[in-house]
This record gives sequence, C-alpha cells and structure tokens, in this order.
Amino acid sequence: MRPSGRELSEMRAVSIETGVTKHAEGSCLIRMGDTHVLCTATLEDRVPPFIKGSGLGWVTAEYGMLPRSTTSRMRREAAVGKQGGRTVEIQRLIGRSLRAGVDRVALGERQITIDCDVIQADGGTRCASITGGWVALRLAVNKLMKAGDVISDPLISPVAAVSCGIYAGQPVLDLDYPEDSEAGVDGNFVLRGDGSLIEVQMSAEGTVFSRDQMGELLDLAQKGVSELVAAQAGATA
Amino acid sequence: MRPSGRELSEMRAVSIETGVTKHAEGSCLIRMGDTHVLCTATLEDRVPPFIKGSGLGWVTAEYGMLPRSTTSRMRREAAVGKQGGRTVEIQRLIGRSLRAGVDRVALGERQITIDCDVIQADGGTRCASITGGWVALRLAVNKLMKAGDVISDPLISPVAAVSCGIYAGQPVLDLDYPEDSEAGVDGNFVLRGDGSLIEVQMSAEGTVFSRDQMGELLDLAQKGVSELVAAQAGATA
Amino acid sequence: MRPSGRELSEMRAVSIETGVTKHAEGSCLIRMGDTHVLCTATLEDRVPPFIKGSGLGWVTAEYGMLPRSTTSRMRREAAVGKQGGRTVEIQRLIGRSLRAGVDRVALGERQITIDCDVIQADGGTRCASITGGWVALRLAVNKLMKAGDVISDPLISPVAAVSCGIYAGQPVLDLDYPEDSEAGVDGNFVLRGDGSLIEVQMSAEGTVFSRDQMGELLDLAQKGVSELVAAQAGATA
Amino acid sequence: MRPSGRELSEMRAVSIETGVTKHAEGSCLIRMGDTHVLCTATLEDRVPPFIKGSGLGWVTAEYGMLPRSTTSRMRREAAVGKQGGRTVEIQRLIGRSLRAGVDRVALGERQITIDCDVIQADGGTRCASITGGWVALRLAVNKLMKAGDVISDPLISPVAAVSCGIYAGQPVLDLDYPEDSEAGVDGNFVLRGDGSLIEVQMSAEGTVFSRDQMGELLDLAQKGVSELVAAQAGATA
Amino acid sequence: MRPSGRELSEMRAVSIETGVTKHAEGSCLIRMGDTHVLCTATLEDRVPPFIKGSGLGWVTAEYGMLPRSTTSRMRREAAVGKQGGRTVEIQRLIGRSLRAGVDRVALGERQITIDCDVIQADGGTRCASITGGWVALRLAVNKLMKAGDVISDPLISPVAAVSCGIYAGQPVLDLDYPEDSEAGVDGNFVLRGDGSLIEVQMSAEGTVFSRDQMGELLDLAQKGVSELVAAQAGATA
Amino acid sequence: MRPSGRELSEMRAVSIETGVTKHAEGSCLIRMGDTHVLCTATLEDRVPPFIKGSGLGWVTAEYGMLPRSTTSRMRREAAVGKQGGRTVEIQRLIGRSLRAGVDRVALGERQITIDCDVIQADGGTRCASITGGWVALRLAVNKLMKAGDVISDPLISPVAAVSCGIYAGQPVLDLDYPEDSEAGVDGNFVLRGDGSLIEVQMSAEGTVFSRDQMGELLDLAQKGVSELVAAQAGATA
Repeated sequence: MRPSGRELSEMRAVSIETGVTKHAEGSCLIRMGDTHVLCTATLEDRVPPFIKGSGLGWVTAEYGMLPRSTTSRMRREAAVGKQGGRTVEIQRLIGRSLRAGVDRVALGERQITIDCDVIQADGGTRCASITGGWVALRLAVNKLMKAGDVISDPLISPVAAVSCGIYAGQPVLDLDYPEDSEAGVDGNFVLRGDGSLIEVQMSAEGTVFSRDQMGELLDLAQKGVSELVAAQAGATA
Repeated sequence: MRPSGRELSEMRAVSIETGVTKHAEGSCLIRMGDTHVLCTATLEDRVPPFIKGSGLGWVTAEYGMLPRSTTSRMRREAAVGKQGGRTVEIQRLIGRSLRAGVDRVALGERQITIDCDVIQADGGTRCASITGGWVALRLAVNKLMKAGDVISDPLISPVAAVSCGIYAGQPVLDLDYPEDSEAGVDGNFVLRGDGSLIEVQMSAEGTVFSRDQMGELLDLAQKGVSELVAAQAGATA
Repeated sequence: MRPSGRELSEMRAVSIETGVTKHAEGSCLIRMGDTHVLCTATLEDRVPPFIKGSGLGWVTAEYGMLPRSTTSRMRREAAVGKQGGRTVEIQRLIGRSLRAGVDRVALGERQITIDCDVIQADGGTRCASITGGWVALRLAVNKLMKAGDVISDPLISPVAAVSCGIYAGQPVLDLDYPEDSEAGVDGNFVLRGDGSLIEVQMSAEGTVFSRDQMGELLDLAQKGVSELVAAQAGATA
Repeated sequence: MRPSGRELSEMRAVSIETGVTKHAEGSCLIRMGDTHVLCTATLEDRVPPFIKGSGLGWVTAEYGMLPRSTTSRMRREAAVGKQGGRTVEIQRLIGRSLRAGVDRVALGERQITIDCDVIQADGGTRCASITGGWVALRLAVNKLMKAGDVISDPLISPVAAVSCGIYAGQPVLDLDYPEDSEAGVDGNFVLRGDGSLIEVQMSAEGTVFSRDQMGELLDLAQKGVSELVAAQAGATA
Repeated sequence: MRPSGRELSEMRAVSIETGVTKHAEGSCLIRMGDTHVLCTATLEDRVPPFIKGSGLGWVTAEYGMLPRSTTSRMRREAAVGKQGGRTVEIQRLIGRSLRAGVDRVALGERQITIDCDVIQADGGTRCASITGGWVALRLAVNKLMKAGDVISDPLISPVAAVSCGIYAGQPVLDLDYPEDSEAGVDGNFVLRGDGSLIEVQMSAEGTVFSRDQMGELLDLAQKGVSELVAAQAGATA
Repeated sequence: MRPSGRELSEMRAVSIETGVTKHAEGSCLIRMGDTHVLCTATLEDRVPPFIKGSGLGWVTAEYGMLPRSTTSRMRREAAVGKQGGRTVEIQRLIGRSLRAGVDRVALGERQITIDCDVIQADGGTRCASITGGWVALRLAVNKLMKAGDVISDPLISPVAAVSCGIYAGQPVLDLDYPEDSEAGVDGNFVLRGDGSLIEVQMSAEGTVFSRDQMGELLDLAQKGVSELVAAQAGATA
C-alpha cells in the first residue's frame, strides 16, 4: 500500500557514516533511504551574549538545502538574500531538540554549532538532521572529554526524531516524499533514548485528527526512535 | 499556586470586541487577560501564483508585535530589515491553523489575509491571534455571504487555540507570561469547535515529558477551547 | 463645502486616552476623528554613540502603520524588508519636533523613544503622532520626575502639530483623507504651546501658492494647535 | 560677520556648466561656491506602473553623495545596502519640486529621471540639486522638442531652490556648511521663476522662530531664487 | 620541499565520482586531494531575459561553501544575507569558463545551471569546481542528446582548470591550502582539452612576477589540465 | 581599422588632473579618452580588525558608477540594495593591485581608502581606476611624508593598468567601449613602473587564445603602462 512497498511500521534503511569531513570536531553523513544529510559539529569557546558569564554552555543549529537536493532546483538562500520561513523553523527545532539532551552546566561556557546540510532530499530532512546532528554532537563532545576539557559527560541521553503521519487513512512510520506530499496528517516526534518526549508537532492539512490517531502515531514514533537510537549507538561506538 | 491566583484549569478573562477598525472587512480586538491582539481580515480577489486558476481560495496570516507591547522595548522588525524566526514561525502557524477550518472550494478563488498585531503581550499571543483571527475571518466571510459572493458558507467549524504547560510540576491551562517563562513543558493546541485536533505543538525546555502528561494537557486544552469557541460565537452572533 | 461638513477652521473631534498599555513608561491613544494612533514612550539609560559622555539626553521616534490601517491593505514593512521613504521622513520629523520642546541638559544622559503606530488612518497621521507623542513623552518624564531621576522638568513647552491646506480653493484646518488627497497645497505645522514655530512644511502638488495663502494657513494652524495643547493638558493633568 | 565674509543677503558664486557627460540627454555641473553637484537627465519611454495608460508624464529624482564629497569619508550607501533617511527625504523633495514646474499632460507618457550626485559638499546640496536638476531637465526637454516628440513646451516656469537660516541671530541667504552646522533655524525654499512658492521647509534645531523671522527668510529666498533663475537662463540659452 | 611531499609538477590525487545525487540531470563529486566539491547540473527550458527569443542557450554557475568545509567555521552566507565578494567572483568565473566550451547555438534556447558546493576545502576549490562542473554539464548534455532534444553535441571541447603558483621560490602545480596561503604568486588557469587558453588569472601578493615565471606556470598548467581532461574522460566514458 | 582610427598600439589621450576635491587627502580626475574616473584617497588612523596591532598598514578600494555614466541609465546600487558582482570584483582588483606597490611596514598601522567613481564610461574603467587611484594614493602619502607621519616612502614603485584585446583578429592596446563589446579576447594587465607584472587577467568570450597571442598582448600592455607611468609622474611632480 505504501509507494515504497514498506510495512506501515517499517522505517527506511538507515545508515550513519562518521568522520566525513576532516575539519569538523564531529561529523556524519546520515542516510534515511534517499534522504541524505551531512551533519557537522563545531566547537567554539565563545557563547552567545545572553549567557556570557553564566557558566552555561549552548548548542545551536543551522540548516540548509543544497540547491539541487530537490526534484526541481531551489534558489540558493544566499542568493535570495535571506533564509526562508521553513529553514528558520527547522533550525530552531533542531537546536531546541538537541539542547534537551544536554546538561548545559556540565558542558561549561562553550558553544557547539550543528550544521545540517541536505545533500539529497526525499522527505523527513528535519528528523534526519536531528538524528544525525546528535551523532555529530556526540563525537565533538567525545573530543572534549578525551582532552579533559569537561569533567563529566554533558550528554544526558541520545536524542532522535522521526516523522509519522496518516497516509491513505493509515498511520505510517517515517514518511518519504511521495507519502509526505499526500498525507493529511503529519507529525514530527523528537524523543530521548529512554522513550520520553522532547517535542511533538502534529499538523493536519485540510483535515483534522483525533486523540486516538495521535496515540497511534506516538506508538509508531517510539518504535522508530528506538531503532534510530540503536543506529546512533552503532555509529558512535 | 499560580502567580495570578487562578485555578489550574482556569482561563484568563476573555473578551472579543468586533468592528474595531473601519477599513478592514472583518476585525476584532481580542483580550486574553493582559494579552491584547488586534486582528483584521482583508479580502482580495487575487490569489497567490501557486493556486491561480485552481478555483481554490487561500487564507494566510501575518503577525507582528508593536515595539512596546513587551516589558522592555523590542526593535521594530521593519527597522531591523527582516522578520525574526519567531515571527515567521508564528505567522505560518496562524495561517495553517485557520485554513484547517475553511472549505477552500466553497471560498472560491480569492484570498483572505489575517493580520494579527500584538498591542500588549502577556503570554499566549500566538493562541490569541488564532482565536481572534478566526473571528475576523468569520466577519469577513459573513460580508462575502451577505453580498452573495459565495454560495455556501466556506467556514466548516470554528478554530481556536490555547496554550497549556507544566508549571511548578502541575498541568495548567492558558499560561501567562510569568508562567510561560518558567514552564519546563509548554504546548500550543489548535482545535476545532467539535473538539478534533488541528495542530499540537509541545516542547520541553531543559526537561522531558511523558505520554500521560501529554494527555493531561490535551484535556485542559479541550476544556479551554470550548470556552473560547463560546466567546467567538458570542462575539460574532 | 468640506466632505465632512466641518467649518473651514474646524478641527475634527480630538480625544486622548492615556495609560493604554501597561508596559510603556508613557502611552496614549490619540484620536483625531477617524485617525487613531497609539503612542508609547520608552525610557532607556543608554544614549546613541554620538552623544555618549556629553551629559545630554536624546529623544527619538519611530513610526509605523498597521497593514490594514488604510482603505486597502498595505504591505507590512517588516515583510518588505525595509522602511519606505515616507516612513523614514515621518519618523525623522516626529523626533526633531519633539526634541524642540526638550531641554536636553535637564533630561540628562538618557534616551526616550517615542513609538507611533497608526491603528486607523484618515489623514494627518504624522501630526497626530507628534501631538500624541508629546503626551506619551510628558507621562514618561513625569515618572522620571516622581522618581527623582531628574532635578528640574526637562520639558520646556508642549509641542503639537496640525495640517492645513488649500482645498477647493479655500484654506482649511486639519485635513482628513478625502481632503488631503484632493488638496493642491498641503502643509504640516509644528508649534509650541506659546505659538512659536518649530517646523513648517508646505508643498504644492501640481500648483503653487502665494505668501498670502501661507499666512492664512499659519493663522489656522495657530488656532488648531492651541486647541490641541488644551487637549494635551487635559489628558496629562 | 559671516565666516565667508559675505553680506547677509549675498549668495555664493554660482556657475552652471552644461553638457558635462556625453551619454545623458541633459546634464550640468552646478557649483554654488564649494558645493558641486553633477546633474543628469535621462529620458525613457516607460512610466511607473501607477500612471501607465494615463497619458501623463513623470519626473523623478535620485540623489547620492560620493563617499569623499564630505570632510570625513562617508560610507558608500551601496556598500551599506540601503539609502539612508536623509537621502530618501532629499530625493523625494527634488522630484516633487521639479514636477511642480512641469505640465505632465504636455510631457506625454514618458519619464525623465534626474540624477544628482554630489561631487563636493559645502552646505546646500539639496538646493543646488534642484536648481541644477532643472537645467538638466530643461536640456532634455529641449531635445524632445527639437525631435518633435512633444508638441508644446511641457515646462511651465523654471524651478530653483535656496536655503536661508538664522545664523548668529541674523537672517542669512545661502548657508554654507560652517553656517549650516551652527544655524538655529534653517529653511529650504523652492520657488518658481515668477516668485510663487512650491515648497517651504523650515526647521528649528533647539530653538523656535517667529512669523516675522519666517517673513525675513522668505524675502531673502525670493531674492536668491531670482538670481538662480537668471543663472539657469544663462546656462540654457 | 612541498608540505605534502609532492614533486613540483605533481598534481594531487584526482577522483571524480558521478551520479551522486538522484535529482540532478548531471552530478559528480570531485576530489582533488582533500578538496571535495559536489557539482550538479540542472536543465531548464527557460533562459535569462537578455537572450529570450535569440535561439541561444545559456550556462551559468553558482558556488557555495558549507559552513564547516573550512578549518574554522565560516558564517553561512544565507544567514549573513548576501554572498560575499569572493563567492560572486568565483561563480562568475565558473560560468564564463564553462560557456567557453559550449556551442550556444547547438544548445538551443535552454539554460543549464551548474551548482558547485564545497564539502571540504583544502585549496583550489574554484579550479575543482570548473573541472567537476564540466563533468556535470557533460552528463546533463548527454541526457539531452539521448532524448533527441539537441541535434548535434553542443559541447565543443572539455574545459578544466588548475592553479599554479610560486611557492618558496619555485613554480609548483596544483597548490593545496598550506601552499596557497604562503605563495607570493598564484594563478588560476582554465584551458580546453586541446591546450588552448580560456582564462588566465595571475596575482602577486606583496611581490611581483616576470614574464619568464609566467611561462613556467603556464607550462605546469598545461601539464595539469591534460591530466584532468583524462580524468574527466574516464568519469564520463 | 579601429573604430576610433587609432593605431593598433596607440593609447587614447590620457590626462590626469589632480586636487579636484578639497576634502580628500589625495584626488584626481583621470581621463582615458571618454572614460572619466574621479579618484580620491582617504587617510584614516584605524585599520581593519584582521591586522589590528600588527603594525602593518592597509590600502583598500571602492568603486562605483554614476547612474548615467553609461549609454543607458543603470540602476543606482544604493537603491538596488547591494553592489553587483562586477562592482565587487573590480574593487577587489583595484585594492589588490595598489597594495602590490606599497610597503605596508613603512606605511604603519593606518588605512588608505581609494574611491573610484566613474563619471563617464567608455571602456577600461577598472584600468583607469587603478592608474588614477595610484595618483590619489601618491598624493595622500606625500601629505603623510610632509607631516613626518612616515619615516621612509611607503610607495615602492608606481602601479598602472591597461586593457588589451584581440579585436577583429588583431591585438590592440587600450580598448574603448565599441572595441571591448566586440573583442573575443580581452585582458587587463596591472604592472609596476619597472615593467614587472602584478596582475594578469585574460578571458576569452566564445573563443580561445594561444600563448603567442598572450605574448603579443603583454608586449602592448608593457608599452601602454610605460606611457601611463609617465603621465602619473607628470601629474604628481
């Protein structure tokens, strides 16, 4: 029933390749099926002005799509002269989600910037960015720990994200682009490795949804995230 | 226990004054306690390029805050030269939410723009904008109907929104600013008058939440929205 | 002869409601007929770089129109990405006019920003902004004086403004929009309460004017401003 | 008493050199003492959208200062990314002033753009731009007439401008920079060759002025403009 | 003597992997040592306004660097709000260079946009972009030919580029970042497969160079380009 | 054979008038035939952040064209809101070229900004800007030396630039606009007074060139620059 032939609760193949760029303190290329996102982590000793002197760390994110990551070419945001509304929303979500897994006291007064650049898009780029962004963050923090720059591990629990939605009347896990563009209800779920919730965003496009449906999607999301957390662990072992 | 002395499930006083500006096709000033938002609806015969010729209508929204709607003065976005990420996110949410209550075929190829301008802010401005925006939309559509420009009512069911969160460990309804700035978990819920869900956005700031807590907040949101829908009905009767 | 039925030298009804927003140090909603402007004053301890260390204070202004304050909707300047030429001109005029009534030594090294936001427009918004802006300024300075932050009153004399023009061949006071859009000669006059002049701006559109006509308009302006100064006094008593 | 040793009602030496650039349809370099402005007129067959099909012509202006036209270098507005408030005000004034001397029906549906670029500044650049801009306009219109593209002369009467102010307590004509930066009251007067008024802008900086003083400045302005009109006539003869 | 241990006339290892993104009509990832650039070609039926109706085709290019392609993180140009001068120069060079290998009549009225995005930088990114951009262009044109959309091959001869410079007093081929940042003289050479020249850019930084040195660098460039052309041929065979 | 009737190796008439603006520390108006560029030098004690504290000086350049310096009017870059790619390229080239003639240690920690504004364009504006910019720089440095602010002359050798190209199959010196718009190969050559090379930029438009042709153009360039250096010496003697 799904265009890809997947089961309702079947994720796309996930792969996470680490160390893909020599300059970043942490990096990975995450592939969720045909969605490919390059995630890098940059360590800096400075923090944003609003926490200067607080002793707290900061994790922030930026997101971009290469112009031809999509079916038809998108205009380059640098050429347009500003980041679009969708970009801004997504990078705020990534940063907020990752911070939920970080002990900012233990991190100390430093900033880690996660850059998520979509090389190829086939739905679910924001979720892939969060999941891959966590891996880049983990690797950068490992470097800090190895160097003795932090005393205890500032990462509390892994963070991962997956989309679910109602496609052709059925709850499905990990929407690809053909499903995403048809789904009446569509959600992004960010969870911790222990199954607790960090962020839930559900939207209906031209329809509504019930609490029962919301529950079904949450069930799928918890299943999906547990698989993603395992993939993260494999990649950073 | 709440700074305002309200019960856990008690909304702030709601008032909706209509017809507040003579030029707009629909307008209201919505007050949720000390949060005051001016909402106007503008009817236009043109539609955005991506639906030209489709026969479908469009509802979109813009959002702004007056510089001194807040405790300390914010820079005017027109002077900064761009709308901030928060503004962009909010106006996308308002538009998407309102469209969920609209039969775009019945509306016909025309556009209604809802402007939500915050005169005074005390938490919950995006929810007040959706609830008030719906009233402005209702009034503008009434004009269309009276003029015979649409055949059947293009508004399916009222749309309203309320925030809920976990404050001092307790689920509370309709957060004001002092609660909002302290709450670890914070959600915005957009519902239809019949209780079905349009949009759910829940975020944890430096903590996580469980499915049970999510259920409690949804219960509160449904209670709150039913009161808001009654206030909308009163204002547009 | 005037569209509104007013006498040549008759102002529109003026009302000034103070304390309209709880956050600003001074605020009012001024109504000149159907022109409604919300004016707020913000006190800040910092001054612009060019007077840092001079001991002098600064008063500045910003101006905006809500998108649907006008007959047809205007694009939001924050969305366009810059303030238009008319906005820039008007806010420079408001700031310059108000400073003419301020003893900047007595004010001391602090800044007061006057925000004038047009809720509904029907001609004369810049004049209403100056007149209402003065009230917001007066109220904010009263707060400074009450707190003992200034020793003597830094406000020298009230400042108010009115437009006059030649409409259908006759000099008329306080143009509303239907008159303004037809008038061949149109002026804005900023005066002090004692009748002395601060700023005179007269323009002919597709015609010229004589020194005699200029004198007649000045006579009207002086009459109008004396009424506005009385309204200011009433509102701030 | 004046820094330059001039009499109170003495203008700076005026020279207007025409034909200074081979590409423009009309051009001049106007020198008012040490203020040098290059003015060019560009003829185009298109008009702005708001008058398309009206049969009316349009005259508009743009203004700029070379970065080192001033005592200390100004940042280039193209590098800053926008035209400042002063630039916008001045170019609106130039366009409005010149249009007051034009019969837009006789001009026919075409646009003339006057560019005024300040090569060297010593006070009074906006007035020099208007006076020189008129010459460029006159020369471009002469070309139209010679080519038979207009039937009757669309220029009604010459337009020129001069600044006057109160310097060291005395009314003076044609302020140079040292005077301008000290003057408490300062005005720009745009007149037609027949002495009638087009635009009057008077401002007090930290003081006020009386109607009598306004009259004295107008007297000076009329004297000054009659000299400028003679210089324009000489240059375009 | 070279930091990398290479011979003076030895290129870095070159690899060109094609078909790296499923959406683009042509794509490759070119690696010149540690410089990795993703190049995609987008076919569009529209052309820029200045050649509409001419029957001629157009090839243009855009260039970007991922924020962490460099040793320390660069600000994202989309966030800054404009493309820097270096970016603009490089993308103009890439487009101009590639057009030199294209018969624009044979291409017909269509546009091909080459996007070059630097994944990892270690010197020579503009040359790698040209060389890889040609491969993406070749692949996209192959598609056109296969589909019968062009009659004869619009590509005249392969285009490739290499940098050369004077490092530690010696002419060296294919500068990497450590060499580039030290070289006193530095050039970029764009050639056709037949050895003829398309573009030569040589700059001295804090020194000068002689015609003899220029000749030596040209010799190296011709050697380098012949190797690159072989690699292009291998990748597109 | 050349549209102007010049010999293949004949420059246009060159004139350099110095001291053309009273505010700049150095200035000239350079005329290469109908190409007229105003060049000014501004001395400032501050340097850009990246060399603060290094003891080294900096020379930078900005470039602009007056809107009607060209055959048809160009839009003002300040109105467009950004400098175009061509402008950015040219001003980077001017700055880089001039720095090649400066001993930055001897200059000391100060900045000289060269502004080149094209009054009238007829081809070769970037070369005229470099040649004239050097004169402005020389004059400003003379002032520094006279004031004893530098101990030894920080200018090593004069810098001048000329364009050459292949027009109608023949190598020609100093292209004017009619030639430039037809030339298949076109180069800009920046040299020092002693004949050594600073910058070579050669481009083919829709053709290619050989090393022999490159040599012929270099011969012409050396001839041209020697004439320009003589003109510079005459102007600054």
